[in-house]
Amino acid sequence: MTATSLRELAERARKRLSEIAKGNRDRALLAMADLLEARWEEVLRANREDLEEAERAGLSKAKLDRLALKEKDLKTLTEGLRQIARLPDPLGRIEGLAKRPNGLRVGRMRVPLGLIGFIYEARPGATVEAVSVALKAGNAMLLRGGKEAFRSNRALVALWHEALGEAGLPEEAVTLVPTTDREAVLEMCRLELLDLLIPRGGEELIRLVQREARVPVLAHAKGVNHLYVDKKADLSMALHLALNGKTQRPAVCNALEAVLVHEKVAEAFLPMLEEAMREKGVELRACPRALPLLKEAVPAQEEEWDREYLDLILRVKVVSGLEEALAHIARYGSRHTEAICTEDTRVAWRFLEEVDASLVLWNASTRFNDGFELGLGAEIGISTSKLHAYGPMGPMELTTLKWVALGEGQERT
Amino acid sequence: MTATSLRELAERARKRLSEIAKGNRDRALLAMADLLEARWEEVLRANREDLEEAERAGLSKAKLDRLALKEKDLKTLTEGLRQIARLPDPLGRIEGLAKRPNGLRVGRMRVPLGLIGFIYEARPGATVEAVSVALKAGNAMLLRGGKEAFRSNRALVALWHEALGEAGLPEEAVTLVPTTDREAVLEMCRLELLDLLIPRGGEELIRLVQREARVPVLAHAKGVNHLYVDKKADLSMALHLALNGKTQRPAVCNALEAVLVHEKVAEAFLPMLEEAMREKGVELRACPRALPLLKEAVPAQEEEWDREYLDLILRVKVVSGLEEALAHIARYGSRHTEAICTEDTRVAWRFLEEVDASLVLWNASTRFNDGFELGLGAEIGISTSKLHAYGPMGPMELTTLKWVALGEGQERT
Repeated sequence: MTATSLRELAERARKRLSEIAKGNRDRALLAMADLLEARWEEVLRANREDLEEAERAGLSKAKLDRLALKEKDLKTLTEGLRQIARLPDPLGRIEGLAKRPNGLRVGRMRVPLGLIGFIYEARPGATVEAVSVALKAGNAMLLRGGKEAFRSNRALVALWHEALGEAGLPEEAVTLVPTTDREAVLEMCRLELLDLLIPRGGEELIRLVQREARVPVLAHAKGVNHLYVDKKADLSMALHLALNGKTQRPAVCNALEAVLVHEKVAEAFLPMLEEAMREKGVELRACPRALPLLKEAVPAQEEEWDREYLDLILRVKVVSGLEEALAHIARYGSRHTEAICTEDTRVAWRFLEEVDASLVLWNASTRFNDGFELGLGAEIGISTSKLHAYGPMGPMELTTLKWVALGEGQERT
Repeated sequence: MTATSLRELAERARKRLSEIAKGNRDRALLAMADLLEARWEEVLRANREDLEEAERAGLSKAKLDRLALKEKDLKTLTEGLRQIARLPDPLGRIEGLAKRPNGLRVGRMRVPLGLIGFIYEARPGATVEAVSVALKAGNAMLLRGGKEAFRSNRALVALWHEALGEAGLPEEAVTLVPTTDREAVLEMCRLELLDLLIPRGGEELIRLVQREARVPVLAHAKGVNHLYVDKKADLSMALHLALNGKTQRPAVCNALEAVLVHEKVAEAFLPMLEEAMREKGVELRACPRALPLLKEAVPAQEEEWDREYLDLILRVKVVSGLEEALAHIARYGSRHTEAICTEDTRVAWRFLEEVDASLVLWNASTRFNDGFELGLGAEIGISTSKLHAYGPMGPMELTTLKWVALGEGQERT
């Protein structure tokens, strides 16, 4: 596609932004849930065509799995839409309206970000979930999905257009970029008509977008997440937190990748950890101090301490105390999710205050870094950038505050 | 300078971030005010050397004027420092700590952004003002000032280091990049150790940074600001607002650049406007519909409707009503500051809600888009990007919210 036509699509969407902000967005979300139920077969048919082509193209089993829409997805998607529709409207309120000494009343009005570009890989559910979060907050979306999911995405966007029509909202609230070549990704990176660009996918896509973007980006980077087991930890709790973090769902970004153990409890804790992890099929990779305390662990290589395995592999390191744990996390962590297990409140608060991560937990599993679990009601991704949104991004994180001033002729002197 | 050494400076600063956040930052601000008073002569001496070299190099009068520190600057800078020291500490509080159904208590802790890069031109006052805002919020700063001001900046940073020492804070809170070549700007654009990069200066610098940056940028773009005089405007108020916006300080970003007048009041308003502006030496450039109503105005060229004059020039356009005014502002405005003058509350609220700008005013002068005037106590610039901060950036805008979770062993099920 030519630069002009992507730009034209964006310009068309921008012209409708104030209609979208003012319109009945919740009605569109509810209509979409109804349409998905009524026309799920259409969506599945398109998805099957995508799957057949992807199989012929020799896509990996994991990728085919992500591409496939399943029966349970209908329930997940419709429940999500209805839940988001029930959330309070983030827009319109004016925060902190205050009277200045000159009588001018100033405050901040919550408004949509505007036009959001969303670049994602072959996961068609995102075409419903991400749009619903953006639309709740009054934004328009320009979608560039993975080419393997193009037919599925087109079917879902067609339903969005019907849902928007039923709610009296312009179709331009949801625009699918009609080509899926890599060129479209680069064009979106340079399209200064976007108020925000969100890439979701593998590390390579994220890095490409961060390198090429000339517009603001909120990236969801990898989660290299640690649990620090302090010398005053309840070791049974620590064991449960480690197991939950590593094994409850190993392939997600808030899973645990490494356990740091205080040297005073290493001898008691590591054998327990090894036995429990072995039962779950987890391979341990250990630092030189931890190795002698473990039967089957292999040495961790220097270059793997910042790795996100997304698999049943766990690194283990013995540290001399809080300082070494903080330094290790600062060096190897990815600012995603970090946890401490301790009964010592002073140590806990230092950890909570000093660790730089989008979520820092005390005596709880890293798996809680999630928009639903933290009470946002929905999420479009987890930002590991500190600007604008740090952590899960729900509808509120897709808004901004503009200043308004109500005067009676005030001039500056 | 080589990439390694700029990186080393940044790494050194990052290592001290938690000390800076925990330290007595207000004491450092007050110590800096005292040091400026005690050692102002040293600063002036360095500044005179900069000025002499700049004169030899043939710098323009306007640039020399910005480079020169004057007697009144001492008062402005010390008063600013003491005022910022008196502001409440933005850090440490946890917002909205709420108990989730599983008993996990989650909230958001206000923390510094971290390490901020600041690229600016030859205005040495910024070496005090920008640092004070960043330090108040617990950030470290990497400064790359204009080469013409290098001696002045070095003298001021030396005082900062003394002030930090007196407060028990590490010198690394304020680092002056020791070279001033353009290469250092590009290196900073690519230094992923920066949590934020703020460019301040001319359009060319801003565009360079926006194009080259691989780190988050908050840019302060030009202000192409409008006043819309509605058919129900109090025309005498409108005249005062236009005069204040254009002439009170024409060379600043919140000055007025264009007046849009409703066709129903154009005949009454434009002659008044012309007379008042002529008295102040303002040249009018008008649209074809306004021209016949003005005696001395020249036609505005199509390509100048998005221009920021920063001078005693004002564009005038007759519009058919609110819709045309909104469309004109959306097309030519720079999302900086937009104002309406009207007694019609319905029209006013549509304008306030629909205009996309960092400050939208009703019956008040555009000149109020300023951190002090809006009550922030200080500012480091005015962001025209909607992400993170839209409008003046004070200490609070240089912080972020990270999630914290306080548990009792909660696991995800």
